[in-house]
Amino acid sequence: MAYDPDNLFARMVRGEIPCIRLYEDAHTLAFMDIMPQSPGHCLVIPKVAGENLLDSPAESLAAAIATVQRVARAVQAGLGASGVIVQQFNGPAAGQTVFHLHFHVLPVYGAGGSLRLHAREKADPAALEQQAAKIRAALATA
Amino acid sequence: MAYDPDNLFARMVRGEIPCIRLYEDAHTLAFMDIMPQSPGHCLVIPKVAGENLLDSPAESLAAAIATVQRVARAVQAGLGASGVIVQQFNGPAAGQTVFHLHFHVLPVYGAGGSLRLHAREKADPAALEQQAAKIRAALATA
Repeated sequence: MAYDPDNLFARMVRGEIPCIRLYEDAHTLAFMDIMPQSPGHCLVIPKVAGENLLDSPAESLAAAIATVQRVARAVQAGLGASGVIVQQFNGPAAGQTVFHLHFHVLPVYGAGGSLRLHAREKADPAALEQQAAKIRAALATA
Repeated sequence: MAYDPDNLFARMVRGEIPCIRLYEDAHTLAFMDIMPQSPGHCLVIPKVAGENLLDSPAESLAAAIATVQRVARAVQAGLGASGVIVQQFNGPAAGQTVFHLHFHVLPVYGAGGSLRLHAREKADPAALEQQAAKIRAALATA
């Protein structure tokens, strides 16, 4: 499939549609998933075009995984998560729905942390903003 | 938790216990998961000490994600997977069981590719070797 420059995440990078931003640098952007599988579920994307992990340039992957680490630490510290799952889907068969490379950062809570497995419902925007504020505070002190 | 230098994967890196190797370079090692969630399920690890993604050095993450890409492409090409899921667990609550940073590379097959979600059974070693041979062949021609 050819990369569509008007996919949802590319438009967020360009600021054409809003998102709840957590972190941004020259190469990456992190923001809240609006259909979270757990409280604090967020996404990390490289800014350059790339449909998935298989077709993306190496520098793009290195930048993305560094931001994944930064955000995962902040999610754990800021929200008191017991653990963090990182997930990344390549292709529709694997569950990919937006065709711009993205990493899911999923905090889990409690001993056997469970996730809502197939996110279908939008979260309360106020709750997302509250979680984002805690993650941003943890990012600022990291 | 302090990093245990005698964890299973550290011992594989040192060659103290066997694994079905797919790829190795100065910084990373890729090998078959012996309790696969799907045919071709393999693992990518950095060689240096690091319990998980949160506590690992940036270079280690960059090297690991580059090998994840290489192996994911080979798994898809060599085994004809429809898609690939990359998963990485941090902490027991998140499902981590070996405390050396590792990325799961999970090929999925068919339109709505499913996974065996909690791997408990060892796969037939001969089947693993056959899959490994196909992945290695794809790595060699990549």
